[in-house]
Formats: sequence, C-alpha cells, structure tokens
Amino acid sequence: MNMQKDVADWFLLLQDQICTGLGIADSEGRFVTDAWERPGGGGGTSKIFSNGKIIERGGVNFSSIYGEAPEFLLSQLMNRVKSKTSSFFATGISIVIHPLIPAIPIIHMNLRYFEIENIAWFGGGMDLTPHCINKDDAVIFHGRLKAMCDKFNTSYYREFKKEADDYFYIKHRNETRGIGGIFFDQLEAIQDISIQDRFNFVKSTGELFLPIYTELIRRNKDKEYNEREIKWQRLRRGRYVEFNLVYDRGTKFGLETNGRTESILMSLPPFAQWEYNYFPEKGSPEELTLQFLKKGIDWV
Amino acid sequence: MNMQKDVADWFLLLQDQICTGLGIADSEGRFVTDAWERPGGGGGTSKIFSNGKIIERGGVNFSSIYGEAPEFLLSQLMNRVKSKTSSFFATGISIVIHPLIPAIPIIHMNLRYFEIENIAWFGGGMDLTPHCINKDDAVIFHGRLKAMCDKFNTSYYREFKKEADDYFYIKHRNETRGIGGIFFDQLEAIQDISIQDRFNFVKSTGELFLPIYTELIRRNKDKEYNEREIKWQRLRRGRYVEFNLVYDRGTKFGLETNGRTESILMSLPPFAQWEYNYFPEKGSPEELTLQFLKKGIDWV
Repeated sequence: MNMQKDVADWFLLLQDQICTGLGIADSEGRFVTDAWERPGGGGGTSKIFSNGKIIERGGVNFSSIYGEAPEFLLSQLMNRVKSKTSSFFATGISIVIHPLIPAIPIIHMNLRYFEIENIAWFGGGMDLTPHCINKDDAVIFHGRLKAMCDKFNTSYYREFKKEADDYFYIKHRNETRGIGGIFFDQLEAIQDISIQDRFNFVKSTGELFLPIYTELIRRNKDKEYNEREIKWQRLRRGRYVEFNLVYDRGTKFGLETNGRTESILMSLPPFAQWEYNYFPEKGSPEELTLQFLKKGIDWV
Repeated sequence: MNMQKDVADWFLLLQDQICTGLGIADSEGRFVTDAWERPGGGGGTSKIFSNGKIIERGGVNFSSIYGEAPEFLLSQLMNRVKSKTSSFFATGISIVIHPLIPAIPIIHMNLRYFEIENIAWFGGGMDLTPHCINKDDAVIFHGRLKAMCDKFNTSYYREFKKEADDYFYIKHRNETRGIGGIFFDQLEAIQDISIQDRFNFVKSTGELFLPIYTELIRRNKDKEYNEREIKWQRLRRGRYVEFNLVYDRGTKFGLETNGRTESILMSLPPFAQWEYNYFPEKGSPEELTLQFLKKGIDWV
C-alpha cells in the first residue's frame, strides 16, 4: 500500500465531490481553478467559488507537497526527528466558505496527512463560525459530528471537541472563533489503532462535510436580512481575519514554507469591518451570540 | 532630570496637539476618548476620531506602562538583562489614520521610550501607505523627513529609511506596505550621542507629523474618486491588515503583554476587502503602484 498516494488521491476525489455539491447548492456562482507548483516540491489545485447567490466566496484547496523540512518545523519536532535535515511529505484539503447570507454560518474543514522520517499522522477537523448563533443549527452540527465520531470511539467527540474549543480561540478577544466542532492535531498510529483506521476516521469526517453544510444552507437560505445583520456579519468576519492571521498554525505554516499566498489567504473574507469598541445592543441576537463564544459549551 | 516623566509628558502633549490639528483639518468627525488602566501597571488614553469627511477613522494613542517584564521580552534581551525577573517602563504614542478619500495616504507614526534595568532607548518612526502612489506626495514626504534628519546627522535619513523599507515589508506578498519613511528600532545613548539628544530627535520627528499630514490632506482632499478607487483602497487596506497582524512587532507586543485590544487594533481599517488573485488593469495607476512597492527606491 502506498499511503502517500492513497491519501492524496482520496483528498483529490473529495475536492471534486465537494465542489460539485456546492455548485448544485448554489447554481449562480462559479468556480475558478488554479493549479500551482511549489518551488521545492509538489503543488496543488485551488478551486475558488465566487459571486453566488448563497456563497459570496469559498475556497476548496487541495495540495500535496514534499521537500526539505524547513527549520522551524524540525525545531517543533525536536526529539522525534533524528537527522538535522529531513524530507517531509504533506497532503491536505482545506475549505473555507464565506456565505453571502448572514444567517448561514462560515464553515471550515481541513484534513491533512503528514510524513517525516518514519512518523506519519493525520490532522484536521471541521468547525462552524455562525455570524449570529442559532441554537438549532449548533445542535444539528455538533450532533452529526458526535454521531460520526461515536462510530469509531465514544471518547473521540469529547476529546476532539475540546481540542477545537482550545484551538479556535481568539485570546486577545477572550472569545472562541465560533461554536467549534472537532479538531485533532496529530492522530498517529498507536497501539491497536492503525494508520489505516485513522485514515478511515478522516474519510468519515470528510464525507460529512457536504451533507452537514447543505443542510445548514437549506435551513437558512431563505431568511431575510437587513443592514444591521450585514454589518454584524462583516464585524464577525473581522474576527475571523484576526484569528487566521494571528493564531492559525496552518496559515503560519503555509506562509513560512513559501506556500502559495493566494491559496492560503483564500480563508480571508471578501469584506470585513472593524469598528472601535463596538458592542451590540443589550438583549439582541448579536449580544446573545457573544455569550455563546465560550469554551466548553455542551451543544449535544 | 526624570526621563520617564519628561518623555511621557511630552508624548501626552503631542497627542493633544495632533488631535487638535486633525480636528481642524477635518471639522466633521469627532474624537472619542477612552482612558484605560493596565492590570500589572500603568495605562493610557486612546483618542479615536471617526466619521469625518476626510478621515474615516484615526487613532491617536498614548500609553505609559510598567511592571514585571514578560518572559518573551526578557528572552529577546538575553545577554543584556542580568536578572531573571526585571521590571520595565515603556511609554509611547501611536497613530494610524485611515482617510475616507482614497487619494489621501494612510499615515502611521509611533514613538516610544523604553527602560529596563540600566538600559534606555527610543524607537519608532513615521511611514506612509498611499492606496495609489502619487510621486509628488512621495517626494514631499521623504524630502521633509530627510531635511529633519539631516539637522541631526547626515547619515540618519539613509540609515532609518533602510530600516523602514526592511521593516514595513509584507514577505508573503513580496511587497512593501507602502512607500516607507523612517524607522529606528533601538536608539540608545552611545559615545557622544546622549539619551537627551536622542529625545530631541524623537521630538523633531513627532513635531513633523502635523505639518506633513495636513499638507498631504490639503493636496488631495478635493480629488474626486469612483467605485474602482474605493475598491482598490479596500484591497490595500486588506494588505495593511495582513502586515499588522502577521508582522508588526508593536501589535504582537501589545497582544502578548495583555495590552488593551481595542487600542492596539485601532490600526485596522474600518473596511477591508480581499479578492482572490486580483490584479489591477495593465497600465493603470493601481498597477503602477504595485511596481513602486519595493525596497530601496530613492524618492529624494
């Protein structure tokens, strides 16, 4: 079995399926496809959807890169990687959708596979950033993730939800980015869980993306919205920018390994807004949203 | 002489003068003043101007803080600071103006004074980020900075301009943030240049802010603009966000020392935009601007 090829091929297939599904869910926008090569080894394909009636902009990126491991990566893997120079292999799929309609949440999924020397692991997750939190949507999202996790191991959901809460946290705002989801940083083969079993879990996560998001679109796409909700959407997108540029490890890794900037920063929203010391009206849905941007909320 | 008090008092005075000057240049907007305290020692005053007819939003921040030096700061000062715990003092003025009118450039000035153990230094600078580069404005800006620097030392301008070019650089875009200006990171007392002489240089820089910026406002405030120029302004503001959140040391220092988030992030623009793989039209002023976002351009 050639794990590198199997995983990369599966991510490519998933990219295709998700793009087809999004194109059906929003028939007005269209995808632009850019294939790129990485100096140093490998490359990828960015598929950027824009100008839809539901999705303002969304990126569905595939990449498969290899080469000399950069120094900052080796220093993070100290004690685990033996040589001072090592080659690495990484493949992944990364998705961020910024909907036009404020009632539809921003969704993010990233799945990746990494090899260096004789270590191999999967990482990634899926999380939701509603502009304005709708409890029913949150319950559906977390419920589906939990049901999927439980098929593998009944401790996964609890564990990976906690990781998502801890990771998608904007420290300087004392806010979570959204309502979280699941996040698993380094799923290695351990004891009786083989890397193939890990791959099966990653596949199940990836296959959940379309059914979950099209359901959230269906539930919210006909909701009317006004100027106040558009402003709030832009302010929340500003927070999304803050998280991605200040904290997100994937973004940092991409920029530091001379990744393709336009593909990495497709996660940034089409429009964002910052207003000094803005607070939403007392008792408004926006204010309620702020109260839910906390770690450790049990949605299921 | 009490250097800490002298410098802080002078920065406070400068904050006042600049706010008065900006209020005269744009009579429609107004300032909101917020005084804040820092848990751990010190505090500051943020003055935020908004809704002007010329300036969309501008922040003029003063701060004076002290306390236990955070670990990451001590590690940067390794070999220079003797104790494992040390108290520090820092005072500064920080200004970012985001004009409403695209022909007027974004301006930034930061002046600061820092003490730890028996080391004391000034840092800061002033730099310009035109949305669309106008050569005459660039020559005026750099010419005035050079004339001021030359009064102190004929090597200052060359040296500090280079520091600005190197510092205000968006590596992942291979672009400078704007046309630079002057930047001096750690002006310490050396040989025959006393800390008081350094202070005098910092004062001259600070006193140049109003005459330079009101001149740039006067030259550009009556220029008409269209949708294309507004879009370009928002895209360039997006780059400003990228620089400040990914690279700016002042922003990082502020967020890591639990500074007041709203004061630190007042540097972010009211509105910003990102468009996947956007390139301006061949031969347009926007495309010409990109060609000037390089290090080492001699404007004077």
